[in-house]
Amino acid sequence: MEGAETLALKDMDLREFGLEVASSSPAPGGGSVAAYAGTQGYALVAMVCRLTMGKEKFAAVQDEMKSLLDTAQMKQELLLSLVDEDTEGFNSVMEALGLPKQSEEEKSLRREALEKATLKAAEIPLRTARECFSGLRLLPGLLDKGNSNALSDMGVAALMFKAGLEGALYNVQINALGLKAADKREELLAECQTLRQEGNLLFEECQSKVLERLQ
Amino acid sequence: MEGAETLALKDMDLREFGLEVASSSPAPGGGSVAAYAGTQGYALVAMVCRLTMGKEKFAAVQDEMKSLLDTAQMKQELLLSLVDEDTEGFNSVMEALGLPKQSEEEKSLRREALEKATLKAAEIPLRTARECFSGLRLLPGLLDKGNSNALSDMGVAALMFKAGLEGALYNVQINALGLKAADKREELLAECQTLRQEGNLLFEECQSKVLERLQ
Repeated sequence: MEGAETLALKDMDLREFGLEVASSSPAPGGGSVAAYAGTQGYALVAMVCRLTMGKEKFAAVQDEMKSLLDTAQMKQELLLSLVDEDTEGFNSVMEALGLPKQSEEEKSLRREALEKATLKAAEIPLRTARECFSGLRLLPGLLDKGNSNALSDMGVAALMFKAGLEGALYNVQINALGLKAADKREELLAECQTLRQEGNLLFEECQSKVLERLQ
Repeated sequence: MEGAETLALKDMDLREFGLEVASSSPAPGGGSVAAYAGTQGYALVAMVCRLTMGKEKFAAVQDEMKSLLDTAQMKQELLLSLVDEDTEGFNSVMEALGLPKQSEEEKSLRREALEKATLKAAEIPLRTARECFSGLRLLPGLLDKGNSNALSDMGVAALMFKAGLEGALYNVQINALGLKAADKREELLAECQTLRQEGNLLFEECQSKVLERLQ
């Protein structure tokens, strides 16, 4: 951790971000990569909306596409922030682990700080997971109504949301398993299960729609 | 297309690249996003190698990790180049489509240029697909031997390779279907099928290894 002078991940170029992920520091890692996958999913959704708007053939869905574009742009920005937040969440856990643990009081303070940081490190990827799940939920409609010239782009959007969702869930699970508070842990794990199951169904629906038209 | 003064995609920051994908121009689109997913997969593999090297617990696999790190770094750079190449391949098709088609000679030249550009636009994502497939092939071994503290990162690497592979295959298929040369078309589609089937098996193997340890 190099402190405040460090460049935000979202301001790094594609090459730098890759090298930062590849470095021997555990963060940024899979959590930030998952959040960026979701960002890309929404970027592709926004592109498909734009390629559908203003075309006579798709006149009937103009308003819907405009509204979807607004949503996609907002979510794209939100997930981009989660690229950095995920790494900050991980770093908070590392800081708590580094607290002194000699006296009973220190041990107690450290335990409390660690629990708090671990909860944060679970809740951040849960937000990523929820946003990627929302992306999967809007795709079947886009696949039905959007410009079919962008079929493969909609397919890649589904893949990015699926990868972002599942990757974020791994990070929620790992951190949830580290929580002392059993009720919070079970609550988080239950939401992971729901998001995974429903996300899988939505993804399969999207993939069928893409593959049947790629023959 | 704004010509040579345009910034290479790999030199854009994460936010700019997202906005460029989201723009009303069809490229960069899913093909470049898929190549960047593969880049991230190898970046995570490189990180896991680094987190495994130099640790006494993993002394037995030092040489293997060093060799894997070299491969991952090379592939990471290669896939990063494919982010830009994919968009160039798409733009070549657009250029060929824009050629004059009044006289018979023009029509013939345009047809030839379009076939050539379409083949290129299929072969570029095929390279992305092959590299992502190679990434999936090395992951089960890394999951067995790498530092298990980075379990979720290996899981996200698998997700990125899977998304990159499948996304690239969509782009190979779409372009292959546009080829006049039936033999080349069938050859490309056959390779897509093999990569998809074997890639799915490898991915499922990776995912089982991750999920069974996330309980």
